[in-house]
Amino acid sequence: MPSYTAPIRDMQFVLHEMLDISRQEIPGYADLDADFTAAILEEAGKLSSGVLAPLNLTGDHQGCRLENGVVRTPEGFKAAFDQIRDGGWTAIDVAEQYGGQGLPYLMHTAANEPMVSANMALNMYQGLTHGAYSAIHIHGTDEQKARWLPKLGSCEWTGTMNLTEPHCGTDLGLMRTKAVPQEDGTYRISGQKIFISAGEHDMAENIVHLVLAKIPGGPEGIKGVSLFIVPKFLVNEDGSLGARNGVACGNLEEKMGIHSNATCVMNYDDAEGYLLGEAHKGMRAMFTMMNEARLGVGLQGWAQSEVAYQNALAYAKDRLQGRAVTGAKNPEGPADPLIVHPDIRRSLMDQKSFNEAARAFTYWGAMLIDRSHKAGDAEAEAMISLLTPIIKGFLTDKGFEMCVQAQQVFGGHGYIEEWGMSQFVRDARIAMIYEGANGVQALDLVGRKLAAQGGKPMMTLIEEIKVFCKDNAEDADFARDFIEPLKSASKDMQQAAMFFMQNGMKDPNAALAGSSDFMHLMGHVCLGWTWARMAKAARAGLDAGTGDRGFYETKLATGRYYMARQLPATKMHLARIESGAAPVMALEADAF
Amino acid sequence: MPSYTAPIRDMQFVLHEMLDISRQEIPGYADLDADFTAAILEEAGKLSSGVLAPLNLTGDHQGCRLENGVVRTPEGFKAAFDQIRDGGWTAIDVAEQYGGQGLPYLMHTAANEPMVSANMALNMYQGLTHGAYSAIHIHGTDEQKARWLPKLGSCEWTGTMNLTEPHCGTDLGLMRTKAVPQEDGTYRISGQKIFISAGEHDMAENIVHLVLAKIPGGPEGIKGVSLFIVPKFLVNEDGSLGARNGVACGNLEEKMGIHSNATCVMNYDDAEGYLLGEAHKGMRAMFTMMNEARLGVGLQGWAQSEVAYQNALAYAKDRLQGRAVTGAKNPEGPADPLIVHPDIRRSLMDQKSFNEAARAFTYWGAMLIDRSHKAGDAEAEAMISLLTPIIKGFLTDKGFEMCVQAQQVFGGHGYIEEWGMSQFVRDARIAMIYEGANGVQALDLVGRKLAAQGGKPMMTLIEEIKVFCKDNAEDADFARDFIEPLKSASKDMQQAAMFFMQNGMKDPNAALAGSSDFMHLMGHVCLGWTWARMAKAARAGLDAGTGDRGFYETKLATGRYYMARQLPATKMHLARIESGAAPVMALEADAF
Repeated sequence: MPSYTAPIRDMQFVLHEMLDISRQEIPGYADLDADFTAAILEEAGKLSSGVLAPLNLTGDHQGCRLENGVVRTPEGFKAAFDQIRDGGWTAIDVAEQYGGQGLPYLMHTAANEPMVSANMALNMYQGLTHGAYSAIHIHGTDEQKARWLPKLGSCEWTGTMNLTEPHCGTDLGLMRTKAVPQEDGTYRISGQKIFISAGEHDMAENIVHLVLAKIPGGPEGIKGVSLFIVPKFLVNEDGSLGARNGVACGNLEEKMGIHSNATCVMNYDDAEGYLLGEAHKGMRAMFTMMNEARLGVGLQGWAQSEVAYQNALAYAKDRLQGRAVTGAKNPEGPADPLIVHPDIRRSLMDQKSFNEAARAFTYWGAMLIDRSHKAGDAEAEAMISLLTPIIKGFLTDKGFEMCVQAQQVFGGHGYIEEWGMSQFVRDARIAMIYEGANGVQALDLVGRKLAAQGGKPMMTLIEEIKVFCKDNAEDADFARDFIEPLKSASKDMQQAAMFFMQNGMKDPNAALAGSSDFMHLMGHVCLGWTWARMAKAARAGLDAGTGDRGFYETKLATGRYYMARQLPATKMHLARIESGAAPVMALEADAF
Repeated sequence: MPSYTAPIRDMQFVLHEMLDISRQEIPGYADLDADFTAAILEEAGKLSSGVLAPLNLTGDHQGCRLENGVVRTPEGFKAAFDQIRDGGWTAIDVAEQYGGQGLPYLMHTAANEPMVSANMALNMYQGLTHGAYSAIHIHGTDEQKARWLPKLGSCEWTGTMNLTEPHCGTDLGLMRTKAVPQEDGTYRISGQKIFISAGEHDMAENIVHLVLAKIPGGPEGIKGVSLFIVPKFLVNEDGSLGARNGVACGNLEEKMGIHSNATCVMNYDDAEGYLLGEAHKGMRAMFTMMNEARLGVGLQGWAQSEVAYQNALAYAKDRLQGRAVTGAKNPEGPADPLIVHPDIRRSLMDQKSFNEAARAFTYWGAMLIDRSHKAGDAEAEAMISLLTPIIKGFLTDKGFEMCVQAQQVFGGHGYIEEWGMSQFVRDARIAMIYEGANGVQALDLVGRKLAAQGGKPMMTLIEEIKVFCKDNAEDADFARDFIEPLKSASKDMQQAAMFFMQNGMKDPNAALAGSSDFMHLMGHVCLGWTWARMAKAARAGLDAGTGDRGFYETKLATGRYYMARQLPATKMHLARIESGAAPVMALEADAF
């Protein structure tokens, strides 16, 4: 069975040595000193290793079962969820007035990492609840907040998001679910929603569905979509649970992975619902939570890669097979461990160098969200909006790829379910799909975010990288290993953006045909920059002469690997982008 | 449920327009005119679409079950296997004296393609039998051939390959299974083998296991391994079945995919066995079949990608979602089909351009095997040995990647088992692992094949590409679209090989750290060259003015896509290779 240990030292390094969080001028950050965050992360790590990880594989095997309209989660899940709830792990950034700890979103993100690595499917129950909490927190009336937030914050009640219908996913303008206004101000919701994660289960007293639906007579298409709160059980004035509402799980989907999260077909039949936010502005209400939701999914991608890597590493050190080409490393034994072989080493370094940069980049993204929400910083808001498709799209594409590489280290054993590596691959796969498929992320990046505010956020990013390169060019080794590759990759990114500007006006396809490549090109630049920032922090750690030299030297070597072996991808993506729309769009649909 | 149609026109194009098989001076090829091969492929296609494909998804759901030592295959499998057997589909290249059709291996390969696309797990039962047939055909005594080959050729009895043990896969020198010689010339085999595909099942009267084991007192390690024939039921002098032998299935593995192929733990307990070939030369006996076996696995990679693509294409034409950025393409409908979107188009073109080149390259490889075996051509033998790691390693890596892309086209539906796209991904995954994990393929390529015969096969390949480029540079469009990218990519390949030569001598790690990248670099050169050859044939088709102009123009456009959008990968791989061993090997094992 796979195991998991939270990489506390790496997490702390990002928070305090790279991001220096306790000195950031963001409300709530001053309290986040190293001891405080270590205490939180260590507890989250213990819970994750001791309680959540051991349920991951058994949960995958058992899956969820639908019996007479009731969904049974796998053995041990309810008890584990109670422990998560009781430990306050669902409420880290929930406002204190609603019973939470009121910490920054960054701390929610960092504490969430181990729980996602240990048991992604279980973590989703609280993740979706967190999304519902945020939606009501931002868009709800005072009465709605008072009614729903305390229970959602604590996860006594869980939440869901209902967008997709059988005939529409990305294109929600085609939606058919109806919401008919009633005289008492409530609505009656009818329709079918699919792919509803945690739509029904046995771990909470009540489930609060957030449902997109159309009020008859409203505008056509996406502009006529509104958001509603539709509880499984109606809630009485005194907060006690009342009658069962007209909503039920019609079916459970059999999926490639995340078997222990219930993916439901939800049928709404004249269910009582309450408008959340303004009528016909449902999409806007969804969008305000989007950066957070997508950051959470991006984290799933690399958090699966992290746990897969940990197990691949352990296997590579343990499994004896063949001899090192440069001479036996374990001459007493019958063979050398796998890790002596250069191609195994390459694979482990691919994984390690990606995971560490992905973590740091995501944490920085979470800090930008705090800066935007808590400090009202519009530039931070613009930057995280630009980077969100990278965090969601690039990190989940790569995270999945790294899970596949980790699985490969196990040879045939990687293909056997018992070893758990298959599950990491199968679970990570969903992160590329939901919360906006990665092709949609690329479209969002190239079709919308690049040109936002006349391109200002993108120019800011380029400028920040340029300033960083200028300010850190002094040391020759550092310049050669980090600054030069970063400059070169950043130049590729600028050239690609320029290509879009010059060609996209007259033919939008010229830009969109390169959208996925651009997302990856920019992703490498972002992680390359992140590595340069981490390397700078590691050098500072070495210079300070305190702490663990080995840790900092390993950090630098891992960074050098990323720069030397991953950044060359930018030139390939640039060449593809510059080949333009013609090769992509040459065939008529019928000619395929 | 997914569907499948054999792409007969594409297959025929490769056989007759690119490879011009009936004019090749290889024994048996003169009979292979277009009508003859079309008749075979159409029948194979019908069987595959009508009988095998409909069982693929149900087989995946049901899987195999072990009950009291008996393995039950999924519903319908036995009847389908009977149909395959009765139609002679297992014996296309089996020698006529053993009841086969005696056709070239190329025809076995081409006729096999649809069966693999339609139902890979079912096809494996005959694929492994084919391997056992070949081993006995090459290494058996006349008596062994007479006893085993007719039944294996027809698949009345099926075959297996027993290499792996719990503690050793790639490093078979660590093997523990023993073969104790008896006075009557037989051996008694004892030990445990794992990952034995088709080790036990209910579709054949007898199962003939080929088992690697050590004769006590023989040389240490890999040089003391011998190969044995160990039947499930002993065979009497008259060919009738006798007593049950001491071999039994101890367990079925739960796997990520190929659920309907039984992957068995096989326990040998004093089982009667017969030495095949020479004592202690078992590895050599296995190696003589290796090019064929690995070509078969390479085919699995892209044959899964082919069927996944067909279904992704159908979905992209059918599913209405969003509007084309250049204006509605389906203004009467509620939305445009997915295929109007450039990033969907890019994904489909990635898949299509890979599949078609992979097929042509594999068919060419099969022709080289025929040229080597049937015409005794040592150069062909050397060339296919060089290309085998590309066919096995590169085509399965890419084939899997393309299955993932095809799944992605379905959005959320791709993750639901009911749609079948998950199965293509899960089934394709194994091809990267078995028959030598792809890292081992890369090691074989860089550590052995590149330097074989003083590098002559590699130089021949480079020279052939060079001559092709010279001979086809006349037309300016063709030169720009095909020859120039091919020349550039080939130069990258030579530069990488040069790097290995210059650095690998003093530090073997410098070469091996780049082995996977070299396999991919060379894979792109090979498929780029294949596309150039297909494009030349397509232009000839256009010039002839007969046949379907649309087909040839589509072929050219697809080839242009590959050259413009895939070949730029060679520069990335070259840069990684030239970064050498240092970044890869920088960390001590303990520092990870």
